[in-house]
Amino acid sequence: MMYRECHRVASKPWGGRFEGRTDRRVEEFTESISFDRRLFEHDIRGSIAHARMLAQVNLLTATECDKIVQGLSEIQAEIETGRFAYALEREDIHMHIESALIDKLGDVGRKLHTARSRNDQVATDLKLWTRDALDRVDARLEALQRAFLGAAERYRDVILPGYTHLQRAQPVLAAHYFLAYVEKLARDRSRVADCRKRLNVLPLGAAALAGTTLPIDRAHVAEALGFDGVAANSLDVSSDRDFALESAFVLSLIATHLSGWAEEWVIWSTQEFSFLALPDAICTGSSIMPQKKNPDVLELIRGRSARVLGALQTLLVLVKGLPLAYNRDLQEDKPPLFDAFDTVEACLDLAAVVVDGAKLRADRINERLDEGYLDATTLMEYLIKEGVPQRTAHEVIGHLVGLCEQRGLKRLADLPDDDFARANPKLGPGVKKVLGVDNAVKAFQSYGSTAPGEVERQLEAWRARIL
Amino acid sequence: MMYRECHRVASKPWGGRFEGRTDRRVEEFTESISFDRRLFEHDIRGSIAHARMLAQVNLLTATECDKIVQGLSEIQAEIETGRFAYALEREDIHMHIESALIDKLGDVGRKLHTARSRNDQVATDLKLWTRDALDRVDARLEALQRAFLGAAERYRDVILPGYTHLQRAQPVLAAHYFLAYVEKLARDRSRVADCRKRLNVLPLGAAALAGTTLPIDRAHVAEALGFDGVAANSLDVSSDRDFALESAFVLSLIATHLSGWAEEWVIWSTQEFSFLALPDAICTGSSIMPQKKNPDVLELIRGRSARVLGALQTLLVLVKGLPLAYNRDLQEDKPPLFDAFDTVEACLDLAAVVVDGAKLRADRINERLDEGYLDATTLMEYLIKEGVPQRTAHEVIGHLVGLCEQRGLKRLADLPDDDFARANPKLGPGVKKVLGVDNAVKAFQSYGSTAPGEVERQLEAWRARIL
Amino acid sequence: MMYRECHRVASKPWGGRFEGRTDRRVEEFTESISFDRRLFEHDIRGSIAHARMLAQVNLLTATECDKIVQGLSEIQAEIETGRFAYALEREDIHMHIESALIDKLGDVGRKLHTARSRNDQVATDLKLWTRDALDRVDARLEALQRAFLGAAERYRDVILPGYTHLQRAQPVLAAHYFLAYVEKLARDRSRVADCRKRLNVLPLGAAALAGTTLPIDRAHVAEALGFDGVAANSLDVSSDRDFALESAFVLSLIATHLSGWAEEWVIWSTQEFSFLALPDAICTGSSIMPQKKNPDVLELIRGRSARVLGALQTLLVLVKGLPLAYNRDLQEDKPPLFDAFDTVEACLDLAAVVVDGAKLRADRINERLDEGYLDATTLMEYLIKEGVPQRTAHEVIGHLVGLCEQRGLKRLADLPDDDFARANPKLGPGVKKVLGVDNAVKAFQSYGSTAPGEVERQLEAWRARIL
Amino acid sequence: MMYRECHRVASKPWGGRFEGRTDRRVEEFTESISFDRRLFEHDIRGSIAHARMLAQVNLLTATECDKIVQGLSEIQAEIETGRFAYALEREDIHMHIESALIDKLGDVGRKLHTARSRNDQVATDLKLWTRDALDRVDARLEALQRAFLGAAERYRDVILPGYTHLQRAQPVLAAHYFLAYVEKLARDRSRVADCRKRLNVLPLGAAALAGTTLPIDRAHVAEALGFDGVAANSLDVSSDRDFALESAFVLSLIATHLSGWAEEWVIWSTQEFSFLALPDAICTGSSIMPQKKNPDVLELIRGRSARVLGALQTLLVLVKGLPLAYNRDLQEDKPPLFDAFDTVEACLDLAAVVVDGAKLRADRINERLDEGYLDATTLMEYLIKEGVPQRTAHEVIGHLVGLCEQRGLKRLADLPDDDFARANPKLGPGVKKVLGVDNAVKAFQSYGSTAPGEVERQLEAWRARIL
Repeated sequence: MMYRECHRVASKPWGGRFEGRTDRRVEEFTESISFDRRLFEHDIRGSIAHARMLAQVNLLTATECDKIVQGLSEIQAEIETGRFAYALEREDIHMHIESALIDKLGDVGRKLHTARSRNDQVATDLKLWTRDALDRVDARLEALQRAFLGAAERYRDVILPGYTHLQRAQPVLAAHYFLAYVEKLARDRSRVADCRKRLNVLPLGAAALAGTTLPIDRAHVAEALGFDGVAANSLDVSSDRDFALESAFVLSLIATHLSGWAEEWVIWSTQEFSFLALPDAICTGSSIMPQKKNPDVLELIRGRSARVLGALQTLLVLVKGLPLAYNRDLQEDKPPLFDAFDTVEACLDLAAVVVDGAKLRADRINERLDEGYLDATTLMEYLIKEGVPQRTAHEVIGHLVGLCEQRGLKRLADLPDDDFARANPKLGPGVKKVLGVDNAVKAFQSYGSTAPGEVERQLEAWRARIL
Repeated sequence: MMYRECHRVASKPWGGRFEGRTDRRVEEFTESISFDRRLFEHDIRGSIAHARMLAQVNLLTATECDKIVQGLSEIQAEIETGRFAYALEREDIHMHIESALIDKLGDVGRKLHTARSRNDQVATDLKLWTRDALDRVDARLEALQRAFLGAAERYRDVILPGYTHLQRAQPVLAAHYFLAYVEKLARDRSRVADCRKRLNVLPLGAAALAGTTLPIDRAHVAEALGFDGVAANSLDVSSDRDFALESAFVLSLIATHLSGWAEEWVIWSTQEFSFLALPDAICTGSSIMPQKKNPDVLELIRGRSARVLGALQTLLVLVKGLPLAYNRDLQEDKPPLFDAFDTVEACLDLAAVVVDGAKLRADRINERLDEGYLDATTLMEYLIKEGVPQRTAHEVIGHLVGLCEQRGLKRLADLPDDDFARANPKLGPGVKKVLGVDNAVKAFQSYGSTAPGEVERQLEAWRARIL
Repeated sequence: MMYRECHRVASKPWGGRFEGRTDRRVEEFTESISFDRRLFEHDIRGSIAHARMLAQVNLLTATECDKIVQGLSEIQAEIETGRFAYALEREDIHMHIESALIDKLGDVGRKLHTARSRNDQVATDLKLWTRDALDRVDARLEALQRAFLGAAERYRDVILPGYTHLQRAQPVLAAHYFLAYVEKLARDRSRVADCRKRLNVLPLGAAALAGTTLPIDRAHVAEALGFDGVAANSLDVSSDRDFALESAFVLSLIATHLSGWAEEWVIWSTQEFSFLALPDAICTGSSIMPQKKNPDVLELIRGRSARVLGALQTLLVLVKGLPLAYNRDLQEDKPPLFDAFDTVEACLDLAAVVVDGAKLRADRINERLDEGYLDATTLMEYLIKEGVPQRTAHEVIGHLVGLCEQRGLKRLADLPDDDFARANPKLGPGVKKVLGVDNAVKAFQSYGSTAPGEVERQLEAWRARIL
Repeated sequence: MMYRECHRVASKPWGGRFEGRTDRRVEEFTESISFDRRLFEHDIRGSIAHARMLAQVNLLTATECDKIVQGLSEIQAEIETGRFAYALEREDIHMHIESALIDKLGDVGRKLHTARSRNDQVATDLKLWTRDALDRVDARLEALQRAFLGAAERYRDVILPGYTHLQRAQPVLAAHYFLAYVEKLARDRSRVADCRKRLNVLPLGAAALAGTTLPIDRAHVAEALGFDGVAANSLDVSSDRDFALESAFVLSLIATHLSGWAEEWVIWSTQEFSFLALPDAICTGSSIMPQKKNPDVLELIRGRSARVLGALQTLLVLVKGLPLAYNRDLQEDKPPLFDAFDTVEACLDLAAVVVDGAKLRADRINERLDEGYLDATTLMEYLIKEGVPQRTAHEVIGHLVGLCEQRGLKRLADLPDDDFARANPKLGPGVKKVLGVDNAVKAFQSYGSTAPGEVERQLEAWRARIL
């Protein structure tokens, strides 16, 4: 063909108008094959659906379509088995696969990119990848819910000190404690689902930014790829990375949930708390201190939340101030997105390993359960039931706690009857029946509280939803 | 009452066990009344619902309840009319209002805080406030959609150069351009709705962290306050700020959408582009350069996205690594949340003012519309329709563009027939019918493209949904 | 004057070319007087230096200069005493002051803005403000160093368990512990100094972006305002906010230092650790739980680090992608910068209050000091001194710790001699002389270690530098 | 050796006290060899210095030391030539190298870890790596300064429109423009130097957190490794990552400088501006639009600033709320730090390529240089020199600009003399001598301005400092 004679950059699929070769340093700087090769399977899935649609609208013959599908399947096998050759100058996974197809099929391969652009192709691939990744995250969230639920069952009779400000506050059932995390993870799953729903709209066919003059059938492609709908505005598609940012946020919130839990269990693993025994298999030692056994997995889960938050910030900064439509900056969406998913998936996996493996040391917890006046609020509510206004009752009990501290008494129950009566006449000898952590827990009754019956009901509800 | 004699911090509602007074510097450092006074109306709304429920379950008499409701209404009026006295040592809006009630009612007022804690009270107030704020944002998003839709109607016949990489790419209808933003805002509204849905679960009744031993009816309160459900785990409630973080993220994404649009219009307002005329009323001048007319509103909208992203970062860092349940750090959730909402609401308002006020300078746009070979892709697709593989067609047209550039020709149509034929025999004299920006736009046909008929259909659909 | 007749926006100092009035919503959106009024004193200081220089180069007469200086001083007094009137349409503090001067002096006042622009004026004011703020921060850092040094002296004989991974690691002297923070703050002070040095270059005279055609003397102004030099490139000045970003970073690092310390002391304040007694004066209680005493100040110091990090993020996002020179986005530099300084200054102040007020509970610490095998590393190093390779010695001692755990022995010293000898023949009866926390601490000898003599030397060195 | 019989995790160097094997999933989650292998050369450099010091203080014999140095050198060669075997269970580069040494040398190798811990070892390695990286960044900053300086020389006679708010403001010399970036980069280099200075203090010898009981000589190691001093507090060392955070900030500021410049040149590369011609070698094309030539390198430099800012946020979040001393979270410091350096180094390299390769299109710039009334401020200052107060002069010239706009005149010089005189009697026929962009530029005279003589002086000063 004549046009071949008069230009010199034909090795680039976009090289027609170019006279000079690309600077090697530029190729190295602009390549994305080092990270977007992860998309190969989704790229091929998208291309097959695209080719089938092209055949249906007669932009390809049935034979051409078959050859393309066959060729793409072969390329997928080559990549999966490590026989595929990568080359920097082919830039990205999309050009790699298309070029390999052309190497195989010649002119038939040169037809695949009909009525699409890399812009909509990349968006489609990345959405397919992200959709799978969201599904994996959801499964892991559920697995972790299951682990927490298992712990809730295992330790249902253990009473823990509940904390606010990391100060002992009121007694709670261990099952209630574990279910708190099940709730948080449920909200996370709900966010994953909403994010997936919004993502699940097909970009392909928006082409570069304006659509195409060719008679394509986008609905056909959407159906083949499992999208719920077709994006209605090509300029929007070409510039849209909302789904990546929303995913990164959803992951960030999961990461902060995990970071708080990990922090708590790092504290619980201290010599001073001794609430938790972690098996050797999930701890590591020190290169210099022979006695050390460290909760590294928990620390890394806590620390890696930083990585996910950083990824979200990267994505937000990336799109700040970008005009319509596609800008090359958007290529940088993938490293933080991949890293955020990898990090959260691994953290969720290991969190479940830790929850399954850790042992609550009920003996050690019990030993000091009478510290911290965990029954003070119950006693205050006893007074309220007797008709004393809450603020007054609060002051009365606060005063009694003060007395205990002055006298070095650990428990309200250690105070003589006299002091109760002097503080408020309604605090008769009967009060001792509501004192003590066991009594305090049993006294709860509100919906969502740590009342044993309520917790049991929640356990059952979750069991029905998850197990 | 006896207990009063033996302690000295009774002025604090929580002072019963305390012996020393709070250090004034500590009061200044820990106060939140300077910013949480914004919650007054929601606090009172929540307290009234709480009091009514207490009466229903006989923790208050009907008379007590009436007094409390009356007292709270008076306090609301005092605050609204600026007659309410604030005092640093009353810490926050919740204590201010409760203390004022006690000042009014004595022991009856001292009963309001029955079966609740500041923890669940604050969460409830903040959720009510945020719910209202989300509703305001949604209304503003719709108003801005309406403004873009209006512009789309106003300029439906204008053809714009569409850009990728800020380089001229393909022609698009102005209506298509404006609708791209309508789509983005629609996703934003969908996120607002999902966030609202997840938020709309009642915290009140979780008390401090464990629920209460008093026989409250949380469903009653939920209904009174318009919540869709009741939070099922008190420890979760006491530690949960997901709704604040999710709101901040939803706002961040809106802010980045606005920042990109503002950037684009700053560029369009340059002497060099001259696509846009901004009325004097929304520009400002320079203190030293007499000729300047600056698009300050657009720049500030772009710049203020930074503020919203900063608020999100603040909230994420805030909750990182916090164990269960409530920690005082969470008090710091309000300033960034308030600021993010204020900023985005103002930016949305002003964006609509700008969209309504700006004029597209069709004359200036038209003058240079034949620059940039906007019809090259259409010509390529013409060749594809003739059976030439896309990659080959791409190279052929790329070569023709190269010829134009060498010869200083602005338009492909300026090339002699010979060159077309030499490049590819299928490029006969007929090609000129598809060349030129007008022809190029008319040639589009895919769903979601800038094809005039498609754009018209989208316009109608949006008109039906919004106007 | 004739020109007055033909335009209608003369009320704005930049209104000459404008025909339409500014939209009120735009005035509200673009104003900065609500936050930049804090700069009034620095603005006036800068204007006085500017006026004096103008007089020196004969752009003002001596009389005009005197009037201006006098007028500005009066305005400063009016602002300081609350008699100054603010008006939204005067936009910012700079226009407020200049307009007030013109109101006072007429044409003489209209001369002040000669050879300067708001761009260089704002940069100068903000640099002056920031320089003062950095000096305040440095003084507070030193005060906090002094507080830590005081605690180091107060508790010099206390031995603490040192932690890594929050697991007990080796014993350290309390003085050594406190000095670790003195070191961190010293690095912070060094960063403050470097930031101040880089900031201290005069912007004024760069005018809008290109300098001026008037014969000004910038060196004169620099000297009057205490700058070390004059900025050499006007385009750079007009676009530069490095000093604000660097300040925010320096503050962020201080905030993270404080957050770690606060976290540690929150943990130390738990019932379980009981290392620390915080006076009532710096704690607060619970609205519902009468026994609670919460370390709120520490929690807020920890939490407010989020605010400072958010401010840094805001500033970084703000300047991302801004072309030369001044863009209105930069107006948004002030709120995060002010907030970061306010927050860090308050946190440093309160940190010193807490360090001074907190009591180390040596009795409680001592009680459990023999938990965690804090002397294991010392014993390992004993073996190393006997010629056993480190890795071997590590395994030997690790094995002994394992034996202790199996048998429920808290201390290595509780193992019978036999076990030592069996583990390694070099572990003769002499080992007991190096066992035990007291012996372990005394055994240290490296520079920078917790060796009592080394710590004493460090204490002396710091005393000489700080007190 | 007897102790070997009774435990089963001896394969870990810290395994002495452990009974269970590490879970494989935990090994995968906690490994860092996949990224910290980059430190190998610095680890070996540090170990050699450490071994030599151990020999000097007689903790190793001279022969042992020689063997170790020889062994480490062999290992370095193995790594460099790809013959080194990595294994997940050896965790990190430090354990890999030490284990390989023990494989080679047996008991002698087991002595290398004497008197050090991984904590101080990692800190030392990472500081050595970061110091080298800062030096590389400084060299690249200087290279980019040189490129800008070269462009300043190349285009010294070109006059550009200077912008504020992206609106044409005043004329500036191209040399002045390029030097603005030289100034920004100079501040960056100054920050790099300060960061390096603060970093350059030796951690090694702090051991785990408390120092060591062995008689080491840290000053010896410091000198061997080129550190300026020795860290004075072991607890501080064990917890300190200030140097990583400060580096990331310094890089962030460089990245934002580059992002602004890249943004500007993306805009300058548009069809509409046409200020800049980028060679084909640094542009790429479109897969669908044959005519496209995109400034991808600039877009990626702009976009990658996001990555650096994300890395800084990651590091800040990572250390937030961590108590003393080492916590495993800190392992996560390396990926963001490495990535930030890699990104900034590559961006600086490519920025220099672009600056060297880009051509300023003086013809296109000149064509429209009379648009935007760039001489208006000069004219205003002409009036000021005639004694008219600045505010009055501003209004007069603003009015004249308004007249031009009403009449469609592009240049102030196109106004008839009458209009000048009517606006202000001092605007006699002489004004035309100061009108026009050439005259305007020549009129500047202030230090740091775009005055030709001033710019020449700056060029000379920079030439002397850089070339």
